[in-house]
Amino acid sequence: MSTPNIREIAADLAAVAALMEIADNLGIFHLLTPGATVSAAELAGAAELPEHGVTSFLEALVAAGLLEWTESPRRFRVSDDFADRTYEAGYLSWSLGANRPFIEHAAEFLRDPVGAAAAHRRNGRHVAVSSRWIGAKGFYPAAIDTIVAVAPRRIVDLGAGAAGLLIDLLGRLPEATGVALDLSGDACREAGRRAAEAGLAERLEVVERSVESLAQDPSPVRGADVIHAGFVFHDVIQDADVFDLVLKNCHEAMRPGGIMAITDAVPYAPDERERRFSALFTYLHASSMGVRLPSEEEWLDRFTAAGFAQAECRAHRFPTGRLFVATKS
Amino acid sequence: MSTPNIREIAADLAAVAALMEIADNLGIFHLLTPGATVSAAELAGAAELPEHGVTSFLEALVAAGLLEWTESPRRFRVSDDFADRTYEAGYLSWSLGANRPFIEHAAEFLRDPVGAAAAHRRNGRHVAVSSRWIGAKGFYPAAIDTIVAVAPRRIVDLGAGAAGLLIDLLGRLPEATGVALDLSGDACREAGRRAAEAGLAERLEVVERSVESLAQDPSPVRGADVIHAGFVFHDVIQDADVFDLVLKNCHEAMRPGGIMAITDAVPYAPDERERRFSALFTYLHASSMGVRLPSEEEWLDRFTAAGFAQAECRAHRFPTGRLFVATKS
Repeated sequence: MSTPNIREIAADLAAVAALMEIADNLGIFHLLTPGATVSAAELAGAAELPEHGVTSFLEALVAAGLLEWTESPRRFRVSDDFADRTYEAGYLSWSLGANRPFIEHAAEFLRDPVGAAAAHRRNGRHVAVSSRWIGAKGFYPAAIDTIVAVAPRRIVDLGAGAAGLLIDLLGRLPEATGVALDLSGDACREAGRRAAEAGLAERLEVVERSVESLAQDPSPVRGADVIHAGFVFHDVIQDADVFDLVLKNCHEAMRPGGIMAITDAVPYAPDERERRFSALFTYLHASSMGVRLPSEEEWLDRFTAAGFAQAECRAHRFPTGRLFVATKS
Repeated sequence: MSTPNIREIAADLAAVAALMEIADNLGIFHLLTPGATVSAAELAGAAELPEHGVTSFLEALVAAGLLEWTESPRRFRVSDDFADRTYEAGYLSWSLGANRPFIEHAAEFLRDPVGAAAAHRRNGRHVAVSSRWIGAKGFYPAAIDTIVAVAPRRIVDLGAGAAGLLIDLLGRLPEATGVALDLSGDACREAGRRAAEAGLAERLEVVERSVESLAQDPSPVRGADVIHAGFVFHDVIQDADVFDLVLKNCHEAMRPGGIMAITDAVPYAPDERERRFSALFTYLHASSMGVRLPSEEEWLDRFTAAGFAQAECRAHRFPTGRLFVATKS
């Protein structure tokens, strides 16, 4: 029997993404560290699952090349390319998993965007997990390089979620302190737990507040050398006056020489490597989240208007993503 | 600003699949014929959607390279590679869309497969649409070539769904008649409608019955030159005695020289181009659908045991898919 000789990349990516989502929903994904070894018994114990079921699933992961048998019986080694495959899976999981309510109710979102948005919400955890999978190679590296390069003593992350970026940064910058600001109480509690686990409770402050609230009270950003925000300012900017005030307050409150590092998106990026994902990202934000993404020029103009001496736009690997860096003189 | 120079294939495939699922849920996908031109007004009219919303969506499809502007204002041309992109999207849509209940409730399926299977069913339409997207290039071509080559006068399709394959075949074989057998009343009604639309009402008979019922009464397959079944025999074979009886009855009832052409799957196909998708397909069938896929050898042995003079296995482009062809002497 001869098998056709075409690589089925779409089938490969789809299968790996589905298997990774299953691993995540089984509660074992975070235990699959590239290069580490695991056993079904350990994973079943950690996730309180039947061991025979976990064994079947790990055998599927071996068949898919995500795990390998080891010489030790019943131990599996996580493949070295697991992180690359996770990054790819992130795009599939975000597009077709996290956004499922927007896809399934697409007609309702066209007919009655406000009603549909109230009725069909995304699962916050699914959004966060798939964004993290993409971000690990798609947008965190450029942000981290930029932030570490200014050797900051105080870093504020706006919309910090579970503070993953800050915990990474404080690990690299032993003299620095951080503030994790987020609107979600759940995210803030998780950030506090993770900071404590990482031995960073003394250096990481958690503030449960909206980014918009900085228009009234910029105290959380006072004295910052770096203010970072990932994919939150495109929400704030829908009210241009509030956005301008937040930016102005950030500029005033931060130390001279400090930077704002904003990871966000531009609409309908035209070049070949970005256009498809950018089209989906732009369309879903407009049709289902009420977000009109500002252009690169509009982002830069607003930084200048807020008083920043200089603002520039750098590319992220993440298609349609941009890192805006605005410097206070 | 320099953009990284890596093609983001996962992002491309994910975005295109999500946009195609949106088009399908908007009720306009079937109007997007490769190379044809469409307008927002036509599509909005056909799907009873607001025209300005459809216009925004079509602009997203243009940005993603799935449509192009034409010289005529407000008319769009569907890209020539739309069918290739649909085929790829099928794998993502099946894996991460149609199987969503199995992915989301993966832990429940491990702990209580029977209870979970009763509680979390897939959307039949989503399964059918994504399978059709894959099938158009993944498994229908090999089946059609094989069937047309024997110049059949009577073709029976077991588990025929909406009779897409039979309608295609009867179009190519003007002397032939067909029988579409399916368990689902909805599918049978849809098959009847489509046959009438295609002017095939006289040549296509629709039978609402299970494949298993052929163990008692093989009259629907009597006199067939070709009996086709796509992805239904792996359910039947879970009761080996019923399966053997169905096969034996098919053998007896069909004309000498006729063939059975069975499109189905083998478990954990090991080669590089199949292993990932095969792993997902095999795992989901075992964990969430109660289906243990038979090996290639087991399939072939059972055809021989049922009396067929010869049985062979051919590859489908669809990873893990096989076309079993059994000939009655």
